[in-house]
Amino acid sequence: MLADLVRKNRSYRRFYQDQAVSEDTLRELVDLARLTPSGRNVQPLRYMLSWTPEMNAQIFPTLAWAGYLTDWQGPEPGEQPAAYIIILGDKTVTPNFGVDPGITAQTILLGATEKGLGGCIVATVQRVRMTELLKIPERYEILLVLALGVPKEEVVVETVGESGDIKYWRDEAHVHHVPKRKLEDIILKF
Amino acid sequence: MLADLVRKNRSYRRFYQDQAVSEDTLRELVDLARLTPSGRNVQPLRYMLSWTPEMNAQIFPTLAWAGYLTDWQGPEPGEQPAAYIIILGDKTVTPNFGVDPGITAQTILLGATEKGLGGCIVATVQRVRMTELLKIPERYEILLVLALGVPKEEVVVETVGESGDIKYWRDEAHVHHVPKRKLEDIILKF
Repeated sequence: MLADLVRKNRSYRRFYQDQAVSEDTLRELVDLARLTPSGRNVQPLRYMLSWTPEMNAQIFPTLAWAGYLTDWQGPEPGEQPAAYIIILGDKTVTPNFGVDPGITAQTILLGATEKGLGGCIVATVQRVRMTELLKIPERYEILLVLALGVPKEEVVVETVGESGDIKYWRDEAHVHHVPKRKLEDIILKF
Repeated sequence: MLADLVRKNRSYRRFYQDQAVSEDTLRELVDLARLTPSGRNVQPLRYMLSWTPEMNAQIFPTLAWAGYLTDWQGPEPGEQPAAYIIILGDKTVTPNFGVDPGITAQTILLGATEKGLGGCIVATVQRVRMTELLKIPERYEILLVLALGVPKEEVVVETVGESGDIKYWRDEAHVHHVPKRKLEDIILKF
């Protein structure tokens, strides 16, 4: 059931780095994204795949991790993502990528979850640096990076408490806690 | 399998209008969206539900349909959506809703597909008119409208041809054709 996948699809930031994700798996995930809705069906998104330790090592330092965990600089060697899908927008197709990036990112992550993988949408990217390192032509804008791998952490969903604080946090056992708003707080009635 | 849901989840614009969608169903769909990733986990999205003929009738005239079908003004009475989920952004939470709207819209539509429903993401909305009609407080920005119902049309996915034309089109039998780009055209190699 989709609800199980949605529940299981947490944002994972620590991985079994030595458990590789194959190019074929990444291609299957992009093939899912290929069939999703696109504003005016212009399909402006493009994808770069990374599954080798060499290319992964180039991508990793351009990404920022878990802003709320100020004492954590991101996954250590050995726990870094085993693969990436970089979502680019082709500016020669449209200047406005609308809601396509969110649609495809979520679809890919649900697909990854179904395959026993997990991942994280990274939006804070050193774009100039990544563009140079990966020699991305000027027509493409870096929109999102999906970090992927076999998750090596536990993530639990909780309910936002009285304080209204939505910041995720990690306990002493390194379990990652994510407060989500209640259904009655997000459905509006006027 | 997710791939089946993704394939089945087409943008439908004609519905069995008399086949109602219950409030409970809409709430279940929003509950799926509730558990999706949100940038910095701020969860700024809010949802208004419409499932009554009266409220549906208010919403329908504020929406634009299928821009490429210039000789079609949208679904006729009897084929209009049986329900809507209006996705709003709470500007007091954040001014930037990031990719959250696409994530939640796709999740809701996949959930609707699993329930035998179908829908369409409508981004071209007469926002001022809708705000007035539904008395939406100023703190909320109308982001997307999801039109929902039991689909009353056939939609087929095709491959973009030599011409590169991505415009969807309808044949004489009113079958809706959607050209999608090939996998090799969206995966970039530099």
